[in-house]
Parts: sequence; structure tokens; C-alpha cells
Amino acid sequence: MENKLNELRERLGIAHDLGKAAGLLDWDRQVNMPPAGAEERAKQSATLSRLAHEAFTQDEVGRLLQDLEAESKDLPYDDDTASLIRITRRDYDKARRLPPAFVHELAHTTGRAMPAWTRARAESDFKQFEPHLEKIIELKRREADYLGYQDRSYDALLDQFEPGMTTAQVQTIFDQVRKELRPLLGAIHERLEVVDGSVLRRDYDEQKQWDFTIEALKQIGFDFERGRQDQSVHPFTSSFSNHDVRLTTRVDRNYFPMAFFGTLHEGGHGLYELGSPDEFERTPLAGGASYGTHESQSRMWENLVGRSRPFWRFFYPRFCATFAEAARGIDLETLYRAVNRVQPSYIRIKADEVTYNLHIMLRFQLETQLLEGKLAVAEVPGAWNATMQDLLDISPPDDAHGALQDVHWSIGAIGYFPTYSLGTFFSVQLFEKAREAIPDLFEQFARGEFGALLGWLRENIHRHGHKFTLNELATRITGEPLQTTSYLRYLKEKYTEIYDL
Amino acid sequence: MENKLNELRERLGIAHDLGKAAGLLDWDRQVNMPPAGAEERAKQSATLSRLAHEAFTQDEVGRLLQDLEAESKDLPYDDDTASLIRITRRDYDKARRLPPAFVHELAHTTGRAMPAWTRARAESDFKQFEPHLEKIIELKRREADYLGYQDRSYDALLDQFEPGMTTAQVQTIFDQVRKELRPLLGAIHERLEVVDGSVLRRDYDEQKQWDFTIEALKQIGFDFERGRQDQSVHPFTSSFSNHDVRLTTRVDRNYFPMAFFGTLHEGGHGLYELGSPDEFERTPLAGGASYGTHESQSRMWENLVGRSRPFWRFFYPRFCATFAEAARGIDLETLYRAVNRVQPSYIRIKADEVTYNLHIMLRFQLETQLLEGKLAVAEVPGAWNATMQDLLDISPPDDAHGALQDVHWSIGAIGYFPTYSLGTFFSVQLFEKAREAIPDLFEQFARGEFGALLGWLRENIHRHGHKFTLNELATRITGEPLQTTSYLRYLKEKYTEIYDL
Repeated sequence: MENKLNELRERLGIAHDLGKAAGLLDWDRQVNMPPAGAEERAKQSATLSRLAHEAFTQDEVGRLLQDLEAESKDLPYDDDTASLIRITRRDYDKARRLPPAFVHELAHTTGRAMPAWTRARAESDFKQFEPHLEKIIELKRREADYLGYQDRSYDALLDQFEPGMTTAQVQTIFDQVRKELRPLLGAIHERLEVVDGSVLRRDYDEQKQWDFTIEALKQIGFDFERGRQDQSVHPFTSSFSNHDVRLTTRVDRNYFPMAFFGTLHEGGHGLYELGSPDEFERTPLAGGASYGTHESQSRMWENLVGRSRPFWRFFYPRFCATFAEAARGIDLETLYRAVNRVQPSYIRIKADEVTYNLHIMLRFQLETQLLEGKLAVAEVPGAWNATMQDLLDISPPDDAHGALQDVHWSIGAIGYFPTYSLGTFFSVQLFEKAREAIPDLFEQFARGEFGALLGWLRENIHRHGHKFTLNELATRITGEPLQTTSYLRYLKEKYTEIYDL
Repeated sequence: MENKLNELRERLGIAHDLGKAAGLLDWDRQVNMPPAGAEERAKQSATLSRLAHEAFTQDEVGRLLQDLEAESKDLPYDDDTASLIRITRRDYDKARRLPPAFVHELAHTTGRAMPAWTRARAESDFKQFEPHLEKIIELKRREADYLGYQDRSYDALLDQFEPGMTTAQVQTIFDQVRKELRPLLGAIHERLEVVDGSVLRRDYDEQKQWDFTIEALKQIGFDFERGRQDQSVHPFTSSFSNHDVRLTTRVDRNYFPMAFFGTLHEGGHGLYELGSPDEFERTPLAGGASYGTHESQSRMWENLVGRSRPFWRFFYPRFCATFAEAARGIDLETLYRAVNRVQPSYIRIKADEVTYNLHIMLRFQLETQLLEGKLAVAEVPGAWNATMQDLLDISPPDDAHGALQDVHWSIGAIGYFPTYSLGTFFSVQLFEKAREAIPDLFEQFARGEFGALLGWLRENIHRHGHKFTLNELATRITGEPLQTTSYLRYLKEKYTEIYDL
């Protein structure tokens, strides 16, 4: 068994290296690449993605898996070797269903769609992006057919980001959350004037903002020997190994939350990747459990930590020292309320905790309709604006603030958005457990100590890498699968207090 | 023929993409990678290099070449298709002679030698590097045997960097140049005080130096839509396509020439890569003709342009405006002489035009002796210092300033150094022709106009990509193969005037 396992690891290692090289091509494209480099880079990315796919889906990997499955059948479920074989099998079977020519076509299409989306957004002109999105939706329908599904075609795409989760489950959860959010949002809407958001829209020096994000990252435990932060138009996190994890952020001189909470969010992803065990490197077990689980980490650091009162007890004096001019006259309570201001808005990544998931529901609705042919691509801007009116009672002034705001569709990530909400719900479910385990957690935050929380996450989440599904982790840690009661309870308590409802 | 040509292009394109991705892994390692990322990155680089080699040396490429050679035999030598087939065959046959196990062993050895060299240099302790260099020399002997040679084993290694050039040719050229440099250097040595180098060692603000290098790059025609500049410990140029060319430079606060002439040098490489034709992309014809030809471009922009009087007529007022404080009291003539100061020194990359090639001769001598078993690795530091004493009349204080100063041996680049000199000689041979073709070239420089020179280089050198050898280009452009009379005449005229000999 040892020989076969080593051979499997060797083959998976090559596929992994190719995938990481493809990841670097992409990171570099967003962070460093000169504008004219896009076309050749798209070809390089397509080649690397295809070769990574080919290396992973070789017949020999399947034969080794078959032999190893027989030889490892008595190992416990959570054993590292058993998990390597189980997870590789799961991902292998999915990947094998996609023909290499299709993978190449998808990579090439999205390689061209991304710059087209960038231009379209800059000019707020959906028409420029429309033919690319048409092609992508068509490819995604084919992808769902290749992958197979029981109920709805969207299941197949969702499963790639959140293994085991179905469209029907997401729909049920969303319907329930939406129902409960409606009265809360309505009540807050009556009292919007209680919170002064303008204090965060003063002139915040860009270099100081950047330095402040670095300070915050160091404070929460991000290791700059094993990572870095850069700037990009669309913030994201990339990992080239558990010793090389890269974050990006975006600085808006007149909107403090953009960089700061963006950094905390990506920092949460980064801490997760840094916590992946050495022994999982160059195997499918490296990294995070799923997109939703990843988002539970980023949303936890961004919101449950970064938008908590004790967090700002610690950071408030530092905030004042850094931004002496802009911070003038802002007391701790004003700042705490400002970073938690609820305000229906056009842009998802600027959304507050209460309205955030409504943005996701909008995208989920449109994606399922597009995939199932119930909505034409040309109708997207109209449908976007109408749904936003329905959910948030506002309508974007143009497509740059509407259907063109997110990069996801241009890179072919259909089925991805729901994981933002699932992760948000999961983050609160986990955080309740962490507070039970560490009763003085908030007192620690107020002293700038985040090591106990990070240790708890390392022990309960990070050290398992890609071994379990979100629901497996939820059940192991909290005794029940993903639920939204914790999330809804948290929102109601927090915002009832802030808005004095 | 068209089908087979397309298939060949497709296969070469994949090998090319893998090579470029490997190049990005390396660029990123030197420019961005956090310190702890090295170990996993080395594995990724080894995988990509091996796969690029495998993709290029597939049997199928050989079969396609064989068919295409028969079908293309009536095409003229310099036809694009004929050249693609000829150059691919040349490089393919060389690559095929190296057994994959050998390529892997070499990659593994140099992967370990590079960090060992870094440590050894930092501690100025040759003993730490010695066992690695022993292994590398042994592998390079085997490599020469695999590749085959007529006369001397060094021929095989030199040919990888400068196709068609032999050890005997280099030896003849070097002997002649050395003989002629000796009296010139002797005469200058009597009058060293004529030039005041201290003006360049004042306090030059780092940000201003950086901005000044960017200004110079724009002025000479480097297109930032298709390229960028970054900082790294060892300056270098990388090309990911002819639309994405990256330079690096190094800024020394107390030594102005480091960044400025480093930038002009890499800028010369960069302009060459930017001039490679679109239709050669993703084939072996993309890029530059050879290492020596590449160096002819970098040395031309660094020295023949950047260290000329008319160049400084244009840049002097800008220099004064940028470095108001440091430039105080430096007149144009003082500045011109300072950037041309001749001073025997330990470090090759800081060497002036007159002594530079003596540094190369030293390395050439040691490399041939090492390869042919006439010098033991343990004897290298002693031989280095003795040869430097003999050539430059100085002896380095330690190995960091001596045998450990260059990265080349640690990455297995034996046979590379001579191309620096060949390129230097070639640069003057070419520049004489350019001045004949553009009689007011220097007047243009004095007006900050470099487009005519760049156009001449595009037409005569750049547009041919990797199609010809250095000597083929030399003969096409100047009517004779590489010669050193132009170079020696240039040096004597220029330095006789500066030092009033």
C-alpha cells in the first residue's frame, strides 16, 4: 500500500504544482500584469489549467485509487490516508466528467471574458459583456450536464463550491432568512438616523490606511514571513502553499471600511490557508474544506471579530493615533455604530451584515434562472434592478452599480455566490461555540489578543484542511448541521441594541 | 504541410506556455515571494521545468519536424516557416540529447545549490558552496558529453548560450582584447585623479532615483502598457510575452549608477523582448537571437547611449531638477566623466567599460579549467584572487567580493559569462552601423529622441527574434562576423579624450 500511496502522492503533487502555477498566473494578472499582457496570459492560463486537469484525471490516478480503496477500507473515516483517498476519489470523479477540450474552452472563454467585463464595468455598458456572459452560461449548462445532477442543473455547479449542498436546501434557507430579516430591516429603516455613517467618509490618507491594515493583520496573527498583502481592483486571497499566502485589498480614500474590513475579510481566508497542515501539502487535502467554510472564516474575522465592540476597544486608540485629523471628534461608540451602520446599498462588498445576504439572494435567483433558461442574458440588467427593488427597495443608477459589479460571472464562477451566505450563517454557528469554549473571548479582544480564537479555529477547522464537508465540520464541532438560528439571533440582538429597536 | 505546421505550433505552444509559467514562478520568487515560500516554490519550479522539457522533446515533435523538413526544403533560409523548422530542430536535437533523469538531477542539484550559495556569500565562506559546485561541475562535464563537441568540452556548454560559438574563438578574441586593453588601462591608471567619482556617491533619495529610472525608461521608448519595472536583489529581465516584459533594478542610496545604469541595461533587454514579432509568439522563434545578442542590446543602451555625452546633454537638466540637493555643484562635464570613471574593482556588475571584460576573462579562464580538470573546485578562491591580481592588479578582501559574487555557477550556468563580452563587442559593431545609417543620431539623443535608434534596432535585430545566430546577424547587418576592432577603437577614442591621454 505504501508504494501505491507514494505513487499517488507523486502524481497528485504534479497536478497540484500545475494548479498552483496556474494560480500564480492569475494572481499576477490581477496584481502586476501590464494591461497589454492579457491576451497571451489567457493562453498560458488555459494551457496550465488544462494540463493540471489532465494530470489530475489520468487513468493511472483512477487505477491507484481503486487499489488503494480496497486496501484502506478498514481505516477510520477521518484518518489522513483514508481521507486523502476519499476526497481524491470525490474530486477525481467530478473532474473526470469534464472533457479536457471543454476545460480548455472554458478557461479560454473566461480568460477573454474577464478583461471584457473590466472594460464593460468601467464604461458601465452591459452590452460589451453580454456576448461573453452568453457564452459562459452556455458552457455552464454543458458543464452541469457533464457533471450530472438529480434535481436541478444548478445543483451540479453549486456542488463544485459546496460539496453536498443542493439548490433546494439553499432555497429553503434563503426563504426563511429573508422572511425573518424583513421585519428587522423594516424596523431599522425607521431609525436610520441613529447611526452617523459620514464619519467613515472623511478624508482618510491612503498610505495610513494601508499601514493600518498591515498593523491589524499582524495583530490578528497573520504571518508576513509566510504571506503578503497587495492591492487589486477586486480583493481576493491566493495560496501558493501553506507557506506563501497572499491577500489583496483596495483602498478608497473617502471610505474607510473598504480597505480595513476588506483586509480583515481576506485576512480570515489567509489565516485559514496558513493553518493547512504541512503533511497535506501537494495533495487535494491542502487548503480549506469548501468555499462556504472558507467564507465562515473570512466573515468571522471581518464581522464577528472586526465589527465587535471589544475589537474596537483595542483598536480605537490606534485608529485615533493613525488618523488624527480624520478621527477628530469620533468617540468609540460613534465609531462602533458607524462600522455597523445598516443602509441598503447597491454594492454587495460594501453591504452591512443585515442586508448582505439579500445581495446574495438576488444573485442566486438570477443565476438559477439564467442556467435554467428562464432568464435571457440580455434581460439581466432589468431583472437585476427589479429584484433589487423588491429585496432592498432601491434600484441602481447604472450597470456598474448593478449587474456588472461582481467579477464572478466573468471567471465562470456560477454557483459560487450562495457560499458567501452559507459561510456567513456558519460563522455565527461556530462563533457561538468558540465563545462557549473561551468564556473571556471578548475580554481578550479588548486587550488585542486574538490567539485563543485563532488556536480554536486551527484546532477545530484549519487542521482538517480539505478533509470534511461544511456539514461534517458543523456536526463535529456543534453537534448539528448548518443552521441559521444562531445567525438570526445574533443579528437581532446586535442591531436591536445598536438601533435601540 | 499547413496541418502539420499547425500541429507543430500547437505542441510548441504548450511547451512555451509551460516555460513562461516556470519563468513567472522564478520572477515572482525574486520579486514578491515571502521568505518562507522557497521550499514549496522550488518543487513547483522543478515540476514546471521538467514538464516544459518533456513537452518540447516529445517524439511527436521530432516526427513532425522530419516531415516538415522534407516539405519545406525549397523555402529560403530566412523564411519564417523555414526558420521555425530549422531553429526548432536545432534546439530539439540539443534538448533530446539530455536524458530526463539527468535534467531532473541537474534541477535538483542547482535547486539546492542556489540557497547554499546565497548563505555562503552572505557569510563569505566558499567552503559552504564548495561541495555544491563540485557536483555541478561534475554534472556539467556529463552534460557536455551528452551534448557532444568536436574540440573542447566547454564548446558544448557555450553553444547552449551562444549557438555556433567555440571556446577557441572566444579565447582568440579575449587574448587580442586583453593585449590591447593593457596599455590603455595602464595609461588611465596614471591619471585616475582626472575623474571625480565621489559625486555619484552622495545621498541620492531612493524614491527620486526610482522615479528617475522610470522617466528614463519612458524616454528611451519602454512601453509601460506592455511592461513594468520592480525591485530585486539581482536585477534581471523577464518576458512572459512580447506584451508583458518585466525589468527589475536595485537602488543604492549612496551609489547613483547602480539603479540608473542597471535600469538602462535591463531596459535594453526589455526593448529587445518587446520588439519580438507577434507572429513568433508561442514558438521557439520568440525572444532574442542569443545571450550575446541580447547583451549587445543591454550594453548598447547602458553604455553607448547611456554613458554618451549627448545622452547627458538631455538628461543633465533633469538630473539636476530631480536631485537638487545631491546634484549641487556638479556640472555637465563632471557628471559625464563621473559616469565614465575607470577604476579596477572587485565586483563585475559595478565595473566600468574598460575593465568589465577583464572580469569576464577571469571567469572564462576558471570555467574552462574547472571543466577540463585543470583546476580543482577547492582551488577556485585562490585562482580567482591570483587571476584578478594578474588582470586588474587588485585582490579581493574576501570570497564575497571574489569567487562568490555571481549567482551563475549556483544555477548551473557554466558557459554563460563569455556572452557578456561577446555582446559588448557586438554592441559597438552594431552602433557604428547605426550611426552610419542615422548621421544625426547624437544630435537626436541630445534632444531626448531615441526613436530612430530603436527603429533601426527593431528593423535590423528585434524583428528577427530567435531566427539567426549572432554571427548571422552580424554578417547581415555589418557585412562581417563579430569583430572587436570597433569596440577597441571606441574605447581608445572615448577614454583618451576623457582622461586626456
